[in-house]
Amino acid sequence: MYQDQHASFSVGQHTQPACAVAPLRVGMIGLGTVGAGTYRVLQRNAGVIAARTGRRIEIRMVAVRHLARAAGIVTPEVLLTDDPFAVVNDPGIDVVVEVMGGTGLARELVLQAISQGKHVVTANKALLAEHGSEIFAAAQAQGVVVAYEGAVAVSIPIIKALREGLAANHIQWVAGIINGTTNYILSEMQAKGLGFAAALAEAQRLGYAEADPALDVQGLDAAHKLTLLAANAFGVPVRFDQVYVEGITTLDALDIRLAGRLGYCVKLLGIARRTPHGLELRVHPTLIAADHLLAQVHGAMNAVLVKSDAAGITMYYGAGAGAEPTASAVIADLVDVCRVAGTAPRQRVPHLAFQPDAIQALPVAAIDALESRYYLRLDVVNPARTVAQLLGHLAVAGVSVQQLDVTEHPGDPGWSAVVLLTDPTPERVLRGVLAELAQWPNVMGFASTLRMEALN
Amino acid sequence: MYQDQHASFSVGQHTQPACAVAPLRVGMIGLGTVGAGTYRVLQRNAGVIAARTGRRIEIRMVAVRHLARAAGIVTPEVLLTDDPFAVVNDPGIDVVVEVMGGTGLARELVLQAISQGKHVVTANKALLAEHGSEIFAAAQAQGVVVAYEGAVAVSIPIIKALREGLAANHIQWVAGIINGTTNYILSEMQAKGLGFAAALAEAQRLGYAEADPALDVQGLDAAHKLTLLAANAFGVPVRFDQVYVEGITTLDALDIRLAGRLGYCVKLLGIARRTPHGLELRVHPTLIAADHLLAQVHGAMNAVLVKSDAAGITMYYGAGAGAEPTASAVIADLVDVCRVAGTAPRQRVPHLAFQPDAIQALPVAAIDALESRYYLRLDVVNPARTVAQLLGHLAVAGVSVQQLDVTEHPGDPGWSAVVLLTDPTPERVLRGVLAELAQWPNVMGFASTLRMEALN
Repeated sequence: MYQDQHASFSVGQHTQPACAVAPLRVGMIGLGTVGAGTYRVLQRNAGVIAARTGRRIEIRMVAVRHLARAAGIVTPEVLLTDDPFAVVNDPGIDVVVEVMGGTGLARELVLQAISQGKHVVTANKALLAEHGSEIFAAAQAQGVVVAYEGAVAVSIPIIKALREGLAANHIQWVAGIINGTTNYILSEMQAKGLGFAAALAEAQRLGYAEADPALDVQGLDAAHKLTLLAANAFGVPVRFDQVYVEGITTLDALDIRLAGRLGYCVKLLGIARRTPHGLELRVHPTLIAADHLLAQVHGAMNAVLVKSDAAGITMYYGAGAGAEPTASAVIADLVDVCRVAGTAPRQRVPHLAFQPDAIQALPVAAIDALESRYYLRLDVVNPARTVAQLLGHLAVAGVSVQQLDVTEHPGDPGWSAVVLLTDPTPERVLRGVLAELAQWPNVMGFASTLRMEALN
Repeated sequence: MYQDQHASFSVGQHTQPACAVAPLRVGMIGLGTVGAGTYRVLQRNAGVIAARTGRRIEIRMVAVRHLARAAGIVTPEVLLTDDPFAVVNDPGIDVVVEVMGGTGLARELVLQAISQGKHVVTANKALLAEHGSEIFAAAQAQGVVVAYEGAVAVSIPIIKALREGLAANHIQWVAGIINGTTNYILSEMQAKGLGFAAALAEAQRLGYAEADPALDVQGLDAAHKLTLLAANAFGVPVRFDQVYVEGITTLDALDIRLAGRLGYCVKLLGIARRTPHGLELRVHPTLIAADHLLAQVHGAMNAVLVKSDAAGITMYYGAGAGAEPTASAVIADLVDVCRVAGTAPRQRVPHLAFQPDAIQALPVAAIDALESRYYLRLDVVNPARTVAQLLGHLAVAGVSVQQLDVTEHPGDPGWSAVVLLTDPTPERVLRGVLAELAQWPNVMGFASTLRMEALN
């Protein structure tokens, strides 16, 4: 549809810019969904990109696994190779676009490209979350740029917003829906009352979830992205291993429904917050108010909320996956590379927002140290008496309850679902209480605990 | 509150960066709300800003009207003057921040600063919307930067998103809530059923509207900002005089209520769209679906939606006014100036997103040429018969109706309010029909016409 619309514009298309400067020579590794999308957008929008950049961006060489398949995608001027090292070592290439994925060979290739003095553009969040420190240090030493806007919430220029747009601010927290697959699944669970397994199956059928959805539904992909957001927000090194992660695989459709009754919805959020006790770095299903802007982010869309001291709350919304949305970010990075070519590295936007000598680790708070509001569901018999005992017990333990909702349990006749929304409570305290409650004879195990966030 | 929170962080504050580079020497003109906010944030966040930028940003000189008042705001190292030309002519100043407002003296000062080879940062949308072509041409000729992130939706880095983040894209349209005052008034009218005058009075009482609200409520401030958004989106010159503008002063609370019954809300939108018939540039109250993300933008907040061919729809949300949100943008521009100091102008991000030689005017479509869905309200007697006649008449004229809602008119007993939502209709056709209907004896004049937008 877009292409049709374009075809109808004969006026004002920037198709013939005069560019005296030599083109930026790009070598690409990988020609899968993102690689092919990047190639396609660079071809289709070459005129408008050059009109903005003042320089043409040309893909000169592509490394692929299957040469014959690739020959059907790119035009004959593009040199195809099945040796990715031929790309990173080629002296005729200025910048390497890594869109092959993975963290093994990709790491080697990126480091080799850097050692050859080439800039690198990548959308590989796993690579940077796990090996970012090594890669950025190497780039810094060689005076080259490693750009990665496509690694987080692809279509949204959130890395640029954090590193540049909000440069004046102390950033207090970042919270986002940064995995489209899980947001799609949660949106379907909420809208249609589906269970996790059914919603996942539908997401897979429609291409919103991969055949092996583990990285997405277990929250690891979101944790990769959160690692990069936190580093840019707070000037800390990338520290994927310190992110607390809960996925959505054990989420019960009943909790989504009961949360809805109380005016909340459940989103998988990545949250990074600076507190007096240390840095919070966590990914988990979270209750947010149903009328919060972030609750309106449906399907596979992404959004990132940033709270900072001068700007206040800002939000950034867009597609979180897809060939062309990712291409948009990859090409924006290539344009940025054009802008800084030849400049002194210290004058450029630093890889992680802060000058390398200003990056310092902050202690990361353990999840037990979190103080949060909680949604608790307990399945009980004889609710009238049990609830009274429950509230008494919680009060003694120091857990105060702000809202209470008792409904018949749809799956278990004779049982009731008791939902409690607590006041802010230390997680350590809450876990102790829940362990005790699980022993009560009229409590059918301990059903669900979900953290809540106000995000204001 | 922010300051308290900061005071409690002793770990990880970037307060002592080592900056070998000479500081960026800033001269500021004006020390009103925005000027004082900029000074305050630069002082408070000096450490974190330098840690990001690798360079200190120092306000060396401020031109003000009232020296004594200013002396209570800035520290004694800052040179105060009541002669703004002393700032723009001072060889010890690298960049001039213009936050005095207005389009007369401000224009002269900005042009003089440029002629002295100084970069300029301004949040003055009226100045750039009216004199942008002259100012950017002068800056281009002198090889200096005129940065203006604060001129549009202050806290939101939307200029950066359009110029850099979306550089790979053909942008199809931009639509935004870009005036906080009117959005506050409309939010109050909707939430409380207030009339325009009452909501305006409340906005004035709370400081959301100025004593003279004309620029805001007549849509001119939004038009100024739309001018800049459109130029950056489409590579056209700034053309304020070609924007079609309707404000909210004649908006009837009844229409907000009746639109709500049908699942819509009314927002003052700035819309710039490229169509085969030319560029649409328009500011007017607009019906959008109540479940659209933009409909969730309440109070004085701003949001800009961008539709582009590769990235799809992205949205940017944040405070649209205020001292520190504006300061956030002004300082981000100062940081950008640090990044490009000494670079060749052609390598920098161009003032209006496109290289100067690639900017070309597109024909602007007259509002009559618009094809849109419409909300029509007619106040009638004997609705049963009149509605049948009405629909027959509209059908003959080529206006097809998608939804109809008849309610008793709250203000006029015996009369009914008939609301029609049309299919897409040329505005020219619609205006003709409405002129005829106004002559009908059982139609009490012609009540309201509002344009609708799907924004998807």
